[in-house]
Amino acid sequence: MPRRRTPIVTFLTDFGTQDAYVAAMKAAVLRQTRDVHLIDITHEISPQDVLAGSIALERAVASFPPGTIHVAVVDPGVGTDRRLLAVSINSQWVLCPDNGLITWAWRRMGGSARELTWRPRSHSRTFHGRDILAPAAGMLAAGKPLATLSRTLSGPLLLDLIIARGDEGAIIHFDRFGNATTNIPAGQVPPNASIRLRKHNLGRLRRTYGEVPVGKPLALIGSSDLLEIAVRNGSARRELKLSVGDRVSVRPDTRGKARGV
Amino acid sequence: MPRRRTPIVTFLTDFGTQDAYVAAMKAAVLRQTRDVHLIDITHEISPQDVLAGSIALERAVASFPPGTIHVAVVDPGVGTDRRLLAVSINSQWVLCPDNGLITWAWRRMGGSARELTWRPRSHSRTFHGRDILAPAAGMLAAGKPLATLSRTLSGPLLLDLIIARGDEGAIIHFDRFGNATTNIPAGQVPPNASIRLRKHNLGRLRRTYGEVPVGKPLALIGSSDLLEIAVRNGSARRELKLSVGDRVSVRPDTRGKARGV
Amino acid sequence: MPRRRTPIVTFLTDFGTQDAYVAAMKAAVLRQTRDVHLIDITHEISPQDVLAGSIALERAVASFPPGTIHVAVVDPGVGTDRRLLAVSINSQWVLCPDNGLITWAWRRMGGSARELTWRPRSHSRTFHGRDILAPAAGMLAAGKPLATLSRTLSGPLLLDLIIARGDEGAIIHFDRFGNATTNIPAGQVPPNASIRLRKHNLGRLRRTYGEVPVGKPLALIGSSDLLEIAVRNGSARRELKLSVGDRVSVRPDTRGKARGV
Repeated sequence: MPRRRTPIVTFLTDFGTQDAYVAAMKAAVLRQTRDVHLIDITHEISPQDVLAGSIALERAVASFPPGTIHVAVVDPGVGTDRRLLAVSINSQWVLCPDNGLITWAWRRMGGSARELTWRPRSHSRTFHGRDILAPAAGMLAAGKPLATLSRTLSGPLLLDLIIARGDEGAIIHFDRFGNATTNIPAGQVPPNASIRLRKHNLGRLRRTYGEVPVGKPLALIGSSDLLEIAVRNGSARRELKLSVGDRVSVRPDTRGKARGV
Repeated sequence: MPRRRTPIVTFLTDFGTQDAYVAAMKAAVLRQTRDVHLIDITHEISPQDVLAGSIALERAVASFPPGTIHVAVVDPGVGTDRRLLAVSINSQWVLCPDNGLITWAWRRMGGSARELTWRPRSHSRTFHGRDILAPAAGMLAAGKPLATLSRTLSGPLLLDLIIARGDEGAIIHFDRFGNATTNIPAGQVPPNASIRLRKHNLGRLRRTYGEVPVGKPLALIGSSDLLEIAVRNGSARRELKLSVGDRVSVRPDTRGKARGV
Repeated sequence: MPRRRTPIVTFLTDFGTQDAYVAAMKAAVLRQTRDVHLIDITHEISPQDVLAGSIALERAVASFPPGTIHVAVVDPGVGTDRRLLAVSINSQWVLCPDNGLITWAWRRMGGSARELTWRPRSHSRTFHGRDILAPAAGMLAAGKPLATLSRTLSGPLLLDLIIARGDEGAIIHFDRFGNATTNIPAGQVPPNASIRLRKHNLGRLRRTYGEVPVGKPLALIGSSDLLEIAVRNGSARRELKLSVGDRVSVRPDTRGKARGV
């Protein structure tokens, strides 16, 4: 009998790594099953920044293989009556509070949401990640059917964060290097487009950093298949003084030849 | 023959995550056995802050299942003649220097301490975590009996940190969100208690953050079963200007109705 | 039939831990095999600091058991025509860009380098760690021979970073505690040596921190078998105002008795 592939459970939180909170969630999974890979996505989401958590969660769901179970906890409403979700998306599961954390993955991939109704006999009022979400993830990893832990739901709460349509979008995220991710998908950027960012003309879409000199800005399709703004070997965020929400436009270049900045 | 459950080894240090020190300890365990889960508790204890390490270690020992082996290294005395410990506590093991790091777990759970006497043929004088504690953890995970690695000991060194008795206690820890943990256990806080913190009257014990408006302080029993001081969707540490050591009192409310701040 | 030991894949990057980049690399390995240990070395290398990455990578290669596969990504040249390497070193493999990242391990241990030529059907131009190096590591972990993924190479690009010869060297790295690592190997420091650092006479080589009073500087052989400068229970970097590149000399002490600072 072929052995089942070891399941994967991931963790995405705003807990930081200075306390034992993340480990307590892993312990709760390991109480359910030891045949599991435990993977950190990030714990450095700014406290209670559901929007930033949503963008990182989409990256996780895009990366992992079918069957992966993601536990995501950015949860300013813990202890209120906000619901918990079990979302089936991209052949994976996401367990998270129903506060918009699923938004960006849902906008890009669709999905099907249920309400996670399983509860332990007793649980804290301040740490549902450890007491409810992680044990439920462990049970799913151990093979328990989701239906026994959840019930149907009309739809999850979604934030205003939207995928750009047409030729205008906005910066939605910065990474550690200061690269700016926009909400403009690769498919909406024609090869001859000229990209503008506030007063900066970034010229035509580039394929790689190496096409511009060190220190110069460029626009390219990033590893998340979205339009990104970068500075070669530098920080676009700092050097171009960018912020989340800055508008970015993608227009066909009407001149014969694109001009860089 | 049923397969043994994969053992768990955890790591708690003040090493930070910028160097390869933590990985070197994991490598030392993996040289002993590959049938093991390696879990980080935290590596962000402030350098040489044994007290803070002690509080995080207690959380780890409270969370993990029986048989877990914890390696804890906050060790300003490395290279002096301080002893190493192998503590049996809450059906788990803790391997750590005998410098008070076990204090808070010991105060809350009791335990039984032995001196870890196993040494490799040669070892550095500055990194016993890698050279002694991690290999010993790997040997325990591989099934070697503790008795062969250790000898009896009268008792571990304990810090002054104490569980509050009666109606007065103190703040012992802040988490990333600025929530303040006190040394007052849940059992010492009557439901009608009025909680005072220096000049702040925090009113009666709450069950959850949602019972007060956003931005208001409250006192509640946290996920560690201790009295905590929080500000809903804010940082109690910053907004109430709190410090470790601040006194907290728990008094029956003599008025008919508790009053919030 | 004895079961093969579970392979180890490690990750060393300058990605930080705020984004999902590291997890995306782990997902790429797990798509190839689930029979694997995934270990973080560090992700806190300063963005694009190949030299610092090189020093951490050497520590990893020195620590892990034979057969370990290290994925190292500090890669300012991604998207240019820089090559990718598969280096066989210390009975382990390192997969990394050919930009000098292998330097320090190569200087200390030698090795044999091949060019990693395997490519997926399509890949991003900005994230070869996820799209090329991690899947290749997964394939090696799953038992695929390196020869099928690579071709011969004359030699890797090496940085100027060198092992000290004779009695003069320099500081090459600081750890979180402010300890300074030099490029002077243990074998070049005679027991009666007097160590000088700019204007500071650090006296004779010590065996352990405990030999000097708290707050005093000392020189000793660190856990990486290199001469280190430390301050007992303090930060040599901050208290002696040290920088990478500061010269350190090791001279036989001509007086009868070494004198500490």
